[in-house]
This record gives sequence, structure tokens and C-alpha cells, in this order.
Amino acid sequence: MFELDKGLEIVELALKEDMPAGDITTEAIFSGEEAIVSARVETRKSCVVAGFPAVEKAVRHFPDIELSVFHGDGDFVSVGDIIYTLTGNPASILKVERTLLNFLQRLSGIATKTRAVVNLLDGTRIRILDTRKTAPGMRHLEKYAVRVGGGHNHRFSLSDGILIKENHIRAAGSIENAIQHCQKYASHLTKVEIEVENLAQLDEALSAGANGVLLDNMSTEEIAAACGRKENHSFFIEVSGGISEARIAELLPLNIDYISMGALTHSAGIIDMTLLF
Amino acid sequence: MFELDKGLEIVELALKEDMPAGDITTEAIFSGEEAIVSARVETRKSCVVAGFPAVEKAVRHFPDIELSVFHGDGDFVSVGDIIYTLTGNPASILKVERTLLNFLQRLSGIATKTRAVVNLLDGTRIRILDTRKTAPGMRHLEKYAVRVGGGHNHRFSLSDGILIKENHIRAAGSIENAIQHCQKYASHLTKVEIEVENLAQLDEALSAGANGVLLDNMSTEEIAAACGRKENHSFFIEVSGGISEARIAELLPLNIDYISMGALTHSAGIIDMTLLF
Amino acid sequence: MFELDKGLEIVELALKEDMPAGDITTEAIFSGEEAIVSARVETRKSCVVAGFPAVEKAVRHFPDIELSVFHGDGDFVSVGDIIYTLTGNPASILKVERTLLNFLQRLSGIATKTRAVVNLLDGTRIRILDTRKTAPGMRHLEKYAVRVGGGHNHRFSLSDGILIKENHIRAAGSIENAIQHCQKYASHLTKVEIEVENLAQLDEALSAGANGVLLDNMSTEEIAAACGRKENHSFFIEVSGGISEARIAELLPLNIDYISMGALTHSAGIIDMTLLF
Amino acid sequence: MFELDKGLEIVELALKEDMPAGDITTEAIFSGEEAIVSARVETRKSCVVAGFPAVEKAVRHFPDIELSVFHGDGDFVSVGDIIYTLTGNPASILKVERTLLNFLQRLSGIATKTRAVVNLLDGTRIRILDTRKTAPGMRHLEKYAVRVGGGHNHRFSLSDGILIKENHIRAAGSIENAIQHCQKYASHLTKVEIEVENLAQLDEALSAGANGVLLDNMSTEEIAAACGRKENHSFFIEVSGGISEARIAELLPLNIDYISMGALTHSAGIIDMTLLF
Amino acid sequence: MFELDKGLEIVELALKEDMPAGDITTEAIFSGEEAIVSARVETRKSCVVAGFPAVEKAVRHFPDIELSVFHGDGDFVSVGDIIYTLTGNPASILKVERTLLNFLQRLSGIATKTRAVVNLLDGTRIRILDTRKTAPGMRHLEKYAVRVGGGHNHRFSLSDGILIKENHIRAAGSIENAIQHCQKYASHLTKVEIEVENLAQLDEALSAGANGVLLDNMSTEEIAAACGRKENHSFFIEVSGGISEARIAELLPLNIDYISMGALTHSAGIIDMTLLF
Amino acid sequence: MFELDKGLEIVELALKEDMPAGDITTEAIFSGEEAIVSARVETRKSCVVAGFPAVEKAVRHFPDIELSVFHGDGDFVSVGDIIYTLTGNPASILKVERTLLNFLQRLSGIATKTRAVVNLLDGTRIRILDTRKTAPGMRHLEKYAVRVGGGHNHRFSLSDGILIKENHIRAAGSIENAIQHCQKYASHLTKVEIEVENLAQLDEALSAGANGVLLDNMSTEEIAAACGRKENHSFFIEVSGGISEARIAELLPLNIDYISMGALTHSAGIIDMTLLF
Repeated sequence: MFELDKGLEIVELALKEDMPAGDITTEAIFSGEEAIVSARVETRKSCVVAGFPAVEKAVRHFPDIELSVFHGDGDFVSVGDIIYTLTGNPASILKVERTLLNFLQRLSGIATKTRAVVNLLDGTRIRILDTRKTAPGMRHLEKYAVRVGGGHNHRFSLSDGILIKENHIRAAGSIENAIQHCQKYASHLTKVEIEVENLAQLDEALSAGANGVLLDNMSTEEIAAACGRKENHSFFIEVSGGISEARIAELLPLNIDYISMGALTHSAGIIDMTLLF
Repeated sequence: MFELDKGLEIVELALKEDMPAGDITTEAIFSGEEAIVSARVETRKSCVVAGFPAVEKAVRHFPDIELSVFHGDGDFVSVGDIIYTLTGNPASILKVERTLLNFLQRLSGIATKTRAVVNLLDGTRIRILDTRKTAPGMRHLEKYAVRVGGGHNHRFSLSDGILIKENHIRAAGSIENAIQHCQKYASHLTKVEIEVENLAQLDEALSAGANGVLLDNMSTEEIAAACGRKENHSFFIEVSGGISEARIAELLPLNIDYISMGALTHSAGIIDMTLLF
Repeated sequence: MFELDKGLEIVELALKEDMPAGDITTEAIFSGEEAIVSARVETRKSCVVAGFPAVEKAVRHFPDIELSVFHGDGDFVSVGDIIYTLTGNPASILKVERTLLNFLQRLSGIATKTRAVVNLLDGTRIRILDTRKTAPGMRHLEKYAVRVGGGHNHRFSLSDGILIKENHIRAAGSIENAIQHCQKYASHLTKVEIEVENLAQLDEALSAGANGVLLDNMSTEEIAAACGRKENHSFFIEVSGGISEARIAELLPLNIDYISMGALTHSAGIIDMTLLF
Repeated sequence: MFELDKGLEIVELALKEDMPAGDITTEAIFSGEEAIVSARVETRKSCVVAGFPAVEKAVRHFPDIELSVFHGDGDFVSVGDIIYTLTGNPASILKVERTLLNFLQRLSGIATKTRAVVNLLDGTRIRILDTRKTAPGMRHLEKYAVRVGGGHNHRFSLSDGILIKENHIRAAGSIENAIQHCQKYASHLTKVEIEVENLAQLDEALSAGANGVLLDNMSTEEIAAACGRKENHSFFIEVSGGISEARIAELLPLNIDYISMGALTHSAGIIDMTLLF
Repeated sequence: MFELDKGLEIVELALKEDMPAGDITTEAIFSGEEAIVSARVETRKSCVVAGFPAVEKAVRHFPDIELSVFHGDGDFVSVGDIIYTLTGNPASILKVERTLLNFLQRLSGIATKTRAVVNLLDGTRIRILDTRKTAPGMRHLEKYAVRVGGGHNHRFSLSDGILIKENHIRAAGSIENAIQHCQKYASHLTKVEIEVENLAQLDEALSAGANGVLLDNMSTEEIAAACGRKENHSFFIEVSGGISEARIAELLPLNIDYISMGALTHSAGIIDMTLLF
Repeated sequence: MFELDKGLEIVELALKEDMPAGDITTEAIFSGEEAIVSARVETRKSCVVAGFPAVEKAVRHFPDIELSVFHGDGDFVSVGDIIYTLTGNPASILKVERTLLNFLQRLSGIATKTRAVVNLLDGTRIRILDTRKTAPGMRHLEKYAVRVGGGHNHRFSLSDGILIKENHIRAAGSIENAIQHCQKYASHLTKVEIEVENLAQLDEALSAGANGVLLDNMSTEEIAAACGRKENHSFFIEVSGGISEARIAELLPLNIDYISMGALTHSAGIIDMTLLF
């Protein structure tokens, strides 16, 4: 169960930009008396399906279309599999076609890429996290697709999580000051995470009570050393910075908690799909 | 000169989704008395820059930031080149950072990919066109990036151009009927383009007065034959369907007018850039 | 079949301006327990009916009202004919009455005036076009009423058609330059129309590849000469400028394509109608 | 001094409907480097000017345009008089031209018609009132134009005044009941006006404490008799129903307070004006 | 019967501020397969119920919830009485709980306080009025609660009633001028009320034709003297200024028309209520 | 430094509901040529001032008003102290007066009540928290006023914090299940708090890894026992449920972390203030 009401504003925007004042070709040709037809959405590549909330919202603008779901979000589908059928006036189906596919192809791309990475982590307790490097307006939907693929979500926005970076430390004067400001200001329900660049900074952060640390672009050796601090402190470790599949293999044996990857959303590519009458 | 007022709604949405209720880390740490700083946006890959209208609109929400442009849209930049500097409160710069980069990296990716394809067509009169396979909400900005890269825009939406497809023909009963309906319904300022599957359909379309044809997934031989019809008719030819760079080389000698490529927008990837204090 | 979603924003605005905070008279007197009544919308003048999309949208705000249509848009009705009946709570009917009539009376006025002009053109291939001289916010609905009356629509807005005027020519340096700029910038699906003032300009425009010309306030002789150019060029001719019924008679024999009249929308007047319980 | 903030939403709507996605002709031709020009708005008919609030709001969307006012609202101007000059980029002036004129021509029409009627009433204490028969979305601006012409405004909406009509009386059971309900429900700052059809109803209304009556479509003799009731009661008399200029002459000697005319707004016509570079 | 469409915007705002991006606790735990449950809204204090329009609008956002009303607005309820039951998914009920109670507790507080004051006035013709000292955004709902409690509403806003205060008088130059300006400007359906500070001002106001006066912070003796003016003038008297229950007792015998109390809305407190599964 | 952009929508709504269509009294009387005046906002009760962000936003709608701040948010002021002066057109000041005071009086009431409670906790490390029992639409501003008074904020909404209640536990099957679901679903930056009813539940929650517990309506003895668990577990304790000042005295010696009080916002009352010319 999930709540995407906020994240779905983009569906309205997408429909509006694709049809600000009607579909002139369809209006010119169709009389409105056409027989009901059935169209199917097929995939031309195997993938993990994601996008139903956006698809459903887009289709709902055309009350004459009945949407049948053959494969729900999270299903793995093969070339030629039918994901949905849309039954209704052909004019309505033509109007929603491009918008529906634009969402479904992009979100399935993200879920598919995430699933591939999650599979690499199988058998470990390491979780894969996304970032805020999402397509503008698509934040909630893309993070939903990451969850569909088996990943976990990092912050949704600057408003819902504390992550102290280098500039914050500089403004606060020290790591200790920065963490204390956050502990005082933030809700008592929020953890404090801080990005550290070396072990000295890590130790300072742990002394000041950080709940977790982000190790950005550190060597595997340094990360291993950081993990050693868990013997004396309770905190989580997130690793990030140009994470490739090869790099993941190196990180697997370490006692880290999270790996975050911008590429899950910014470089997932699209899955080729088509709508056929 | 261009008008992007409509297409920029997505900038508001992007800012709002990244900061629905403030930046809690920054608010916790910064007193508001921080010294003005200057940050620079650098590219980590060579590319054609695109995105200024979105960047400018995003930055304008932070009146204390002064934006200086070192490279405008359309400039080719190399690794390490500074594109912009932002001078203002560090808190404001941190708040706009991610949104700014998300636009700039994606739009520069599109302009860069478009430029590469345009270069392949150098010396011919063939124009490269985009499609409606754009990221939701980004239609106007992505098509702007295509123009920055030297490409041309196909329809912005279903509302601003006639393109008759197979389903329209079926609903109208014949190619002739479909074209006549469009000529009657559409504005006298709009041309009628029709997708045809073979030369017989092409001839029927030309007899009915089509202004142009879309040849989708046709062989080079068929396309060449279609071009031959130009001796007796005045019409334009658009070629589309999984166009790769190799395929473009094949098409270069033909008397076609346009090549349309969805990949310009849906598979351009991002350009790695960073904001540094 | 048509799409008026965009043009109907004005219905919301009209309802809101007529009832920003309820109907205080009706609220004071009606208990909400009143018996359902039936009211009829009658015309006090013969006319061509137009306005259903606005009427239907306005009435839909009062879910208790059932709207029955006795005469649809395009029907010719005589004094005393019933166009609609509204069955529901009298309070709801009183609330929607004025807004409903304000739309219906104005749009029927436009359809009626258009029909009269269209009748004058009977037997010719000349089409009557509207202009952008519409009531603010009513553009889409008024142009719809023109279609109901048998007319055709010119541009909906500055965004959906190319029409080069004197100032554009001056800025471009020459007619040829202006047309070439437009051919390069505009979508390949858009025709280029240009306003010319004399035959020399006409010839320059045709050489540069204009798809059509607007002859504004030209004499019948000049227009006839312009029509002669059709022997050697494929282009359309639109005539405009203070077109009266007498003037139309003069134009009938000429080989022109379109006559555009601002008066269709700005001087159609209203049709007297009433809502009776 | 006046407040038109609410009524000006229609200006946004008008601009948007005339330019939902830019002015493609102007964008194609103008480089943005054009020299500043000055254009003048001239009237081709003598009239009372009205429309400045809308004109000013529309122009304000183009910050490069400087608007100079030669004749303010309420001024009487003759053929060829310059009302405004607009100095700025020619592209901006072309974009605002049609919207500006659409407002100014219509509102000046209303002010001019109102002034003509007001002149007929010169020397009497009778005031001319408008009605709610206004163009959708233009209620506030059209009522403003009536004031500019020297008229007074009736209710702005169903929310801001009590006017009991026949259906209200029927629902309430009697004139007395209807008035009492209104006195009880309405704000103590609101007067109660009732539409009566004959002298018996008038007497019943006065006994029940009505503050004023609307005499709709009554004969001059009946109206005179109604005026006689002023000897014993304090109330106002409004006369309405197809008021022509001839009819006004008949009403002049009577002791009535208000004449209301729908034609002030629904049949004022437009004033021919033009924008010249 | 009432119209609260405008006043209910605050319900959307309240729901949105309580759940801008879902209910993360509920989403984490509930599978969406939970059995339907029934929850009851109980009062922990006796009160007059008010708030149904807001409750109903809030609940309508959760289509799976069925709302049953055991006590409508205006009912007096005792400790432990059930006001509503909500039957639906427990997740939906948890999401609407706080918003529902926040409206119901506050509005019932206002209705209850109003009812207490109205009871003090029992047997007199004096009416109790509210003021504009309402919670931001809650104006329409709080004034509705006052009506539910048996009170009457003063102005809803600055837009719907004339009330001349000291600063207006100063700007106009004299009481007479101020009243005349208002009589000329205001709708003929609006009464003119003026705040006066002493009997001399009262007399000046009555001579100028004021329809009513507001006596703010006057002594009982002065008020009694003011009431004496009713022998020769037709006008209403409103008394205001720190009205306590003791003060009301003093005012009861006087021939005043209205008492206005800001405390009805700004100091009503809340009624303790709870939602129980 | 803080960010209230979201929370300030209510200011627009408040201005609009107080002046949907202008201030008719002021418009009737003021010519617009009035001399600039200076008005002062004075308090009639000593209090802690809060409300500047709302005041500033409201005043900004009247660009002619210059706002001078004599006492900022958080200042303690005494009877008769001037908080602000507003210098500008008297008409503008009259229009903003009521809205400004409605915000300032309510928010200062909350800050003042919070300060009083905070003073009781002086010398302890216990923090006072607000709840979600805020006026609809005022959530962000009221929570800001709590901070101004020295308190801390609990969750802003259901979207930004995990708090497991009885119904969640029932749906999950057990305390352990509920906590595990939340740890899995929630962001790694969010702590998990759970409401427990007795020590057995507390122990179960601590074993399952809860980061904190809410003890609602527990006896002082039970709370003391709960505090004892801190010897073996790292977690925080929040106490709530009808907290009075007397009760706070009892809680002072205990090793609790937070006390939450709905009364801070729902029963703070208003501070009497006035605007004087």
C-alpha cells in the first residue's frame, strides 16, 4: 500500500502538454460513433514492470476506457508479453497512448535496473538506495519504481531528512557543532547522517552522536576501517560515489548498511514497449 | 528568441518536490548570517550546454543569488569548464543545487546527442526531428534542447499538427477519406502528413493531396522509390523507426527531408556536472 | 466530435463571479425541502442554437439538476421553442439560471450570425473564417459557435499558426527573408501565410514560397488580379477587412478561398431567451 | 479608487488563450535585437474610453513595454485620438496587441452606451443600473465600465444582495413570509428588494417591510401609482424590462429611483480601435 | 440550507498539511487487505455539535469510508454520545482522524459558546452577532458555527457591508460626508452603518441618513440615551466592546438590536472529542 | 533561519476571505489622494510576540505600506508596547488591519503559553513538544510560534515521522511486527516511535528495536519504572495526555525526554492587541 497523490501531479502536466487543445487529427477523422476496440500494451524487451499508478491516473481521464492489468508492478515480463489491455473508443486510446508509454517505459527502466543491482546484493544485508538525481517532477514516481525493483529510498527531499555535508560543517565551524545544531533543531523522530571524508572526521562524528555516516568516494580499505568502528559505536554506514557493478562485488564482504546509486534513476534508460490495436 | 513560459511549469514542480517544507539540514545549521560565497557549476564531461531557461527560473526563486553565465546554451564546453557561477548565501545555493543540476545535466545530454547526429547530416538538406517520446512534463524544455543542438522540432503535442496513422485510416475507411476529413477540419494553416506503409499507400495519399508522408521502418530501397514520386508531386518525406548512426549513413544520399529520432530525447543520458564551493 | 476542455475554464470563472459566496436570497427563503420542479429554457427569437458544452458544464455543478436537450447545437429554433428543460431543486435552477443564459444567448448569437453569412456563400467553395476578435476568455467557445453556424476557424492563438504581417516583414528586412525565417523555424506541419498590400508584394511572396496570402482591405479588382496568379502558383487566398453582406456579393464570383470576418464574434449580439418555471 | 483584483483574472485567461505556447510567427522572424519602437492605440470612432485596469494588467506581462496614457478612463475621445502609446520591443507589442484591443474596444463600448443613457437622465435624480447580463468572466470589468460611463452597479452576484423574485415568493408561501425569511437570514447591513407584479403585491411587500421594489415590465400608469405609495412608506423603486430610449423619456417625470438595463452590457457593441506602429 | 463551497477551501489545506506525502506509519504497516472496521466519534464534554460540512468534505476524500451521522449540527450532546461513525479501511480512518477532529472540536466550541449567549438573550429581540475576529481561513465555517449556535452573522468581509469607522470619518472630513459618499458609491441594496463615539456624533449620523449605528465601548447610560433617538428616527443599534455575560444582563432591558462579540469565535475554546475504534 | 513558504498559503486565504471583492466602505470614502499616515500595533496584554512571517507576508500585498518592527518574534512585551508601525495609505492599512491582527494575536498567544511551560522546565533537559491539534491551515505557523516560545516541534504531519499507535499494532499482529515493518519501509533517516500502554508492551517494543516510546496517560509510578529501562536500552521517552502545570511539577524529577501538550496550540487563547492611527 502506498500513497502517491502528491507525486502524480506530473501525470496531469504530461497529459496537458501532450494535448493542450485536443487531438486535431483524431477530431478531424473520428465521428465519435466508432466501435469500441481493444488495444494491448506489449513489451519489446524483457523487464520488471513499473508505472501502474501513473498509467491508471492517466487512463482515468478517459472514462470510456477500461484498463485490464495482465502484469502488475514488480512482475518480470518477457518480449511480447501483454502488460495491459485498454478497451474503449479508439479516439480515447490514441489520446492517452503516448503519455501512458512515456511513463511506463521510463519507470520500468528504473525498476529493471534496480532489480539487477538488488540481485547482486542477494544474501547480504546491504540495501540499495536511490538519490535525488531524478527527472524533474518525477521524484515520487521514480522512487516508487526503485521500491518496485526491490531497492529502498533515500530522502525524498531536503525537507524530510538530515544529511550534513561539507559546506554545513564549514558553516557550523566543526563537525561537533553541526551535529549538535541538527540534534537540537530536528524533530526527535529524525536521525542525523553526516558525510565524512576520512577516518578522523568519522571519529569526530561518532563522538558527537551521529546516527549514521555517508562515505563518499572512499577506497575499499578506508571503508573497511570505518566498519571497524561499529565495534564501539551504534551507527549505520552508507557508501556512495560512482558505484559500478564491479565495485559492488568489492563492497559485498564489508559490514556496510547501504549503497546509494544515482544511476538507478538518471541512467536507467527506457524499455521499448508498444501499444497495438 | 523563444517563449518557454508554458514549458517552465516543471521548474516549479521540481523545486517543490525537492523542498516541500524547507531544507531541514541547512536550517538547523545556518544562522542566516553566513558570508556570501561563490560557487561554480563545472562540467566533468565535454558537451553542448543546454538548460539556461530552467536554470534561470530555478535560481530566480532565490533573489539573493546572482547568476553569472560563462557558457550559454549551444556552447561546446570541455572537462573542467565553468558554465555558471552562483554568488549568494550558501544556504540558498545548497537549496537550488540539486534542482539546477537535474535540469542542466539532462538537457545538456539531449543537446549533445542532437549535435552529434546533426553533424552526421552536415552538407545535406536533411533535417533531424525529435518526437513526443519526452520525459513527462519536460516536453517544451527537451524540444528546446533539441533546437539548441541544431535539430528541429516535430509536433509539440497532438493539438498542433496533423499526422494520420493507421488507426485513423481504418476509422475513416480509406486514405482518401482520412485526408479529406483533415483538410476540411483542420485550420487552413496546417499541413496534412500521413504515415504510409508501402508505395501503393503512398500513391493513394499523394492523389488525395497529402502535404507530406511519414515512412516508418521502410527499407532503403522502398524509401528511394518513394523519393522518386517527388518528380510528379510536391510533398515532403519524413523517415523514422529505430534510426541508428549506421542507418543515417545509408539515408544520406536519398532525397528525403526529415529523419525523426525518439532517442534524441529518451536515450540521451546525462552529462556529469558538479557544483563546487 | 470536439475537445473543449481548455476553453471551458471560463465556465468556472462565470459561475464563481456570479456566486462567490452563495445565493443569499435563495438560502434565506428555501428550506432545501422544496419539491422538484421543471423549468424550461425558451427562445424569444428564432436562431441557431449554440452553447451546449458550456451549458452542460455549468449545470453539472448542480448534481441534482437533470438537463434534457430538446434542441442541440446547430438546430434552428423559432420563437417559443423549448431548447432545454432543467428538472431539479428550484434553488439549484435559480443559481445556474443567469450563467446558463449568459453563455447560451451569446453563443447562439454567434452561430446565428455565422449561419446567415454561410448561406450567402452557398454554392461556392469559399469558406468563412472567424478572427481573434473574441470576448476575453471565450475564444474556444466562440470559435466553436462559429463552427456550429457552419463557419471555419482561423488561428486559435498566436501559438498555432504562422501569419506574417507588415511589422514582421519590416523586422525581417524583406518578404523573402520573413518567409524563409518562418519556413526554417516553424514545424514542417505548418503552412506560411502572409499579409500583402499589393500585387508586387504578392509576387514576391509567391516566389519565396508562401503557402497562402491574406489580402486586407483590397479592391475587388486587385483581388481578381491576385486570383489570376493561381494559374502559375499553388496557394490560397484569404480576403478580410470590414466585410459586409454587400461586399460578399461582390466577392462571390472570384476564385478566393477564404473570407474572414471579425464581426462574426465581436458584433453578433445576443439572442433573447428566458428560463421559465 | 477601486479594487479590481478579483475581476482581473480574466486578463490572465485572455493572454493565455491568445498565446498558450508563444507567438510562432514573431519568434521565427524576430531576433530579439530589434530596435525599440513606439506604437499608438487610436480610436476610429468617438467614444468614452474605458479599460485601463485590464490594459495595464495585460501590458505588465511584458516588462519591456512602457505604457503612456493620453486619455484615461472616462475621457471622451474623437476619431483619430491617441489613447495610449506603447514603447518597447516590437515582438512584445505584437504579442499584447489583440488582447489589449479586445478589452479596450468592448469596455469602451459599454462606457459609451452608458454615458448616452446617463445623459438622458440629466437633471433628474434617477440612476441608471446595470444587470448581471454580462459577458462570462467580465462581470467586474463590465460593471466598472458602467461606472466609468456614469452609471451605477446593481448586484455584482447572487452573493451580495437580496432580490426576491416570483419563485422565491412561491417557495415561501407568501410575500410576507419571503420578506421575513430574508430579514432574518440576511446580514443586518443588507436591504431587502422584491420584484412585484401589481399594486396588490406592492402593498403586501410594503406592509412586510420591504426596503425596495423592482417593477418589471409594468405600464407607466402602474408605475406612477406605485410611486404614490411613497407618501406613506419609505422605500425605493427600480424599473426594468426592455428599457429603450423612448421609454426612458416617459419615465423621466416619475418619482422612481432606479432604471436597470441589461443592454448596457449585453448590447453595447465594440468601438473600432487600432494599434499602429 | 447553506452554501459553504468557498469556505471549504480550508478543508483541502488542512488535509494537505497533515498528509503532504502520505502517512508513512500506516503505509509501513497496513497491507491494504485489512478488514473493514467501524470507528465512532464521541464527545467527552456536553456541547452543541457543529462542523458537518467540513467533516463531510474531509471524509469524502476517502471514498471507502461511509459516514453515518448520529447527531447533526445544532444537536445538543452529552458526555459519551456518539456523533458519527466511520466505517471503512482502518488506514483511511487513521488518515482523516486528526483533521476531522480539529474541525469538529473547534466549530462545536463556537456553537456551544454561542448557544450559551443566545440563551441569555431569550425572550428579547436582541440578536447576537459575530465579528471578523475569526481564525485565518476559517471565516465561513466559524460564522456557520455561530449560526448553528443560534447567533447571526455580521459582515463576512470588507466586501459585503458598509461600516464607517473613525478613520473613514476623518478622511471624509465629516460624518455627513462619509455617509453621503457611501450612499452614492454603495449598491442600492446595502445599508450604511457607522460607528459613533457619543450622542453628538449619533445625531449627526442620523441627520445624514445612516441606517444603523455601532456603539463601541459606551456606558449603559449613553446607550439608553441613544435608544431614545428611535422615537424620531428609523435606525438600528449595535453594541460592542468587551461584552461579558454580566454586561449582557445590563443591556437586556434596552431597546438595542444587536450585540456583537469577538469572543464567540476567538475565545470559544475546543470541545474534547475522540475517535475510537 | 527558517522556511515557511508552504505554511504561508493560509495568509493568502485569510486576505482573500476578508476582502474577496475590495473594501467597499474604504472605496466609497477614500479618494486615493489621502496623506500617508502612520499606524501602530500595540499590545493590551504582556506577551511573547510571534507572527512576523505572516504579518510580513500580509503587509507585502500592499506595496505602499512600510512595516517597521519594534519587537521581533520572541521578544517579551508589556501592555502598551508598540510592536510594529505601518506607514502608508490609510486605505491600505485599514484593509490589512484585521488579517494582520488575527494572525498576530493568535500566534502570540501560542508563543506566550509555550514560554510559560518552558519556564517550568527550566534547569531540566526535558523538552516540551506540540502536537497536530492545530487550527486547520495554521499547522506550520502555529508550530513556528511554539518554537518562538522555546518549545520543540513534534511531527508536522503524518508524512514526516513514524509513530505507531494501538491500531497499527493490531493490524500488524504484534508490537514486534509493527516495528519491523516500519524499520523496513521507512527511510533509514527516520526513527521509530511507538505508543505503549504498559511496561510489558514497553519491553516488547525495546526488544524489537524501537527508538523511542510514547507513554500516554500513564501514572507517574509507571513512567518512573519505564525510565528505569534506560539502563539497558538506548531510547527516548515522550509523555503525553492531559498535561497540566501541576502534572509537570510531578514529572520534573523523572528521566524523561519529552512532554507533548495539545493545549499549547488548541487552548492558548489570543492576546488582545490593537492597531491605532
